Formats: sequence, structure tokens, C-alpha cells
Amino acid sequence: MAARRFYAPDASGTDRTVKLPPGEARQLGRVLRLRRGAIIQIFDGRGREFVARVQSIDRYGVSVRTLETVEPAREPAVRLELALALLKGRAAGAVVRDATMLGVAAIHPISTARSLALPAAADSNNLADRWRTIAVSSAKQCRRAVVPEVRSAASFSQFVMHPAPGLNILLVEPVLGVPRAGVRALAERPAPDRATIAAGPEGGWTNAEVDAASAAGFELLTLGSRTLRADAAPAAAIVVLQHVWDDL
Amino acid sequence: MAARRFYAPDASGTDRTVKLPPGEARQLGRVLRLRRGAIIQIFDGRGREFVARVQSIDRYGVSVRTLETVEPAREPAVRLELALALLKGRAAGAVVRDATMLGVAAIHPISTARSLALPAAADSNNLADRWRTIAVSSAKQCRRAVVPEVRSAASFSQFVMHPAPGLNILLVEPVLGVPRAGVRALAERPAPDRATIAAGPEGGWTNAEVDAASAAGFELLTLGSRTLRADAAPAAAIVVLQHVWDDL
Repeated sequence: MAARRFYAPDASGTDRTVKLPPGEARQLGRVLRLRRGAIIQIFDGRGREFVARVQSIDRYGVSVRTLETVEPAREPAVRLELALALLKGRAAGAVVRDATMLGVAAIHPISTARSLALPAAADSNNLADRWRTIAVSSAKQCRRAVVPEVRSAASFSQFVMHPAPGLNILLVEPVLGVPRAGVRALAERPAPDRATIAAGPEGGWTNAEVDAASAAGFELLTLGSRTLRADAAPAAAIVVLQHVWDDL
Repeated sequence: MAARRFYAPDASGTDRTVKLPPGEARQLGRVLRLRRGAIIQIFDGRGREFVARVQSIDRYGVSVRTLETVEPAREPAVRLELALALLKGRAAGAVVRDATMLGVAAIHPISTARSLALPAAADSNNLADRWRTIAVSSAKQCRRAVVPEVRSAASFSQFVMHPAPGLNILLVEPVLGVPRAGVRALAERPAPDRATIAAGPEGGWTNAEVDAASAAGFELLTLGSRTLRADAAPAAAIVVLQHVWDDL
């Protein structure tokens, strides 16, 4: 059985003592009941992974000693970011989980005309923290050594005003009679170095949002002629783009 | 705005009076408060769709009169069936919704070594009914005129003993050092007429299940080197296969 993995953002090299964050310490000590001397793996969330030995478990937390580096899981060649509308209920969390498993490098929570509203500053931090927690747990589960950065929540207009370098894609629903790029059109062009995919809320984008994104250089992409639910479309889009870019 | 759509499995042609099923009747009358004379669309779940006028709404139900046929949403060229392990909680329902939106023609609930157990006969009917209800509501939402057939729940061994004609695929997790077909290998072969995709439970397949499926002619397919959660993998696999088969 593969060694248990823990997230240790303070890990910085071999032969060093590292403290686990409180949540990870609790899981190691109280939930899994590992003991001093247990061999685990830790990853720093930025792509490095280590074999480590549990050094101490006490009321002050859990310290581990890094022993050697481990070859981390391969990251996608195309750096992918996901801008995700604030979906209702648990839907956004499910997408964050999927996106992490699929190798996304950064996630931007965005509020749109038809999504939940942008929360106040404090709640906005809470929201980003919740998404970060999900991203960490997903990275643990899929054995990825990178945890996607979760940016602060922003409005859609702030987001499109500062498009990232590389290919910017707005996932849109098919509209009868309106020609839009399909995956096949993208497949005919070389893979970009980096790409950002913006995925809308349950009710879709407004026309004004689609126009604003177009004007900012976003390409409008549909996933065929069918309508996927808002929390299924992002993962499907990522998988098919990664296939097209030979990155699956 | 597009006309409201209702599921009317008894619809059989134009200029006929059709009764809506009780759930649809309730939605039309009580929830949406449509009135006699309202123009709606109905679909029969087998690929036909009609414009219809509401004829009567009373304690006995809702009758509508079909006026003309409507060009239904295009179905995939490759007939796709999904065998889905009995996932926990709401996960299976989410996959049924996705699969319906993606054009799957039939869904087989299967119990596997690591999934929920096969329910007793009565509960098994309930389960299939629940999945059918989800499939209907998903077909309404995505404007598809076909509702996937939901078969009775079966054990995995019953399922692999009678493989369907066409391409049979077992979605497997990547295993370090074990070579398995990726999407690219499938893409080099012509599209099949029909394909069945079997997707496992949260804990994956047992080795015995993988061997049994192999022996029955199933191809083992991984979605790249990453591990997707059990309720995200099926939709991602369908989208990428439909892209490969020019069916998206």
C-alpha cells in the first residue's frame, strides 16, 4: 500500500524538521493514529514531495523529518487556470475537486450576473479558504504534489479586464444558429503554453458578459451541441482540451 | 424564450390528444400554472418531439393536443451505453444526469465488489425508477427528445457475462507501471457503431473484476495519468470519446 500523504507547505528540503499544519496534524495523530517513527510522504503543494518520518506528536502538533525526495506526479504541460462562477450549494466544491485532480494550476472564484453575488471581503476570504481546503484534500487524494492557488473572489468584469497571458477561453452553451468554436477548431492549432478556462453559473452568462469577454480576447468555446450542467462542464472541458493538447 | 417542454411517453403523432404523466401534469398545472390554450412542446423520450396546445387541466390530469412535429436535438452517431456502479449518496444521480445530457442511450446500474450491494428486487425497481426520474428531468433540461433506458440493477458478473455488441470499455484508474490503453490509442481506430462504458465505484474495481471484464472482451481505458472521482470520470470519458469519434 502506498504511504499516507500529508500536506506540509513548510517543507523545503531533505533532512529537515517540518511541522504539519493543524488539520493535517490532527488527521495524522487522532484520525489515523499514526505513531512516532511512522513513515509517511509529505508534499509542499508547489510540486515537491518527500518521504518523511514522524518525529513527534504532542499537544503542540506534529513534526516530521524529511528523508528523501520523491518523484512527484507529472503536471500538465499546458498550465491551466480555471475561472469558476460562484455555483450554488456544493457544486463549486465538486468542481474545485475535479479541477485539482485534472492538474489545474490556479482557480479564480468569480461572481457573475447570474451567479451568487460577490461576498463581502471577510466572507470572500472564507470562500477562498473553503476552496483551498477542498483543493488540498483533492491533491492528497489524487497524489498530486501541487495544490492549485485559489485567488480571491472577484467580479467577472474585474476578471476579464485583466486577462492572463496565453489562450483565454469562455465556455459557452450552444446557441441555435450562432456559430461558435468547437473543440475541433482548437485542435487544429498548436497547444498554448498556458490557458485559462472561464466556466459560468447554472443560468449561464449574460449576453453582455459574453460580449465583454469577446472584446477582452476570450475565445467562445462550446462542448458540442449539448448542454452540460454547470458543475460537470468544467471537468469535461478540461479533459477534452488536455486530450487535444496531448496532455491527458 | 423557448417553449416549455414536457415528457409525454404516450405521444404518437400530430393531431392527437395525449395525457401527460402525473408528475408532468402537476408541474404544468400547479408549479408553472399554465392554462388551457398554452403552447408547449412535448417529447416522447424515444426521439420524437411535438408542439402541442394544452387542452384540459382538471382533477383527472392534463391533456394536450399535438399540433406539429419539431426537429429533435441531434443524437450521437455512436450509440453509447453506460454501466454505472451503485455510487453512494447523490453521486449516481449526478452521473445519470450528466450521461443523459451527453446523449447516452441506455444506463445499466451495476453492483460491484466495492460498491453498494445489489438491492432486493423491490428496492432494485425503486432504484431504477429513481434513475429514470432523473433521466427524464435531465432530458427536459437539455432539450433532448430521447430519455435513456434505465435497465434493472444487476451484479457486475451478470453484466460482463452478456457483453453488448460493439466496443466494450472498462474505465480503470491508472496503475503505476501497468500499461493500459489511453484515449489516443482508441482515437487511431475507426469509430464503432455502438459502445458501452463501464464505470466503477469510489473504491475502484477489484483485480478479479478487471480480469473478468478483460476475459469478456472489455478494453481497459485510463483517462491519462490522473485519478478522477467516481462521479466525475464517466462524463469526462464520454466527452473525450465523443470528441475522438467526431460526435461532440
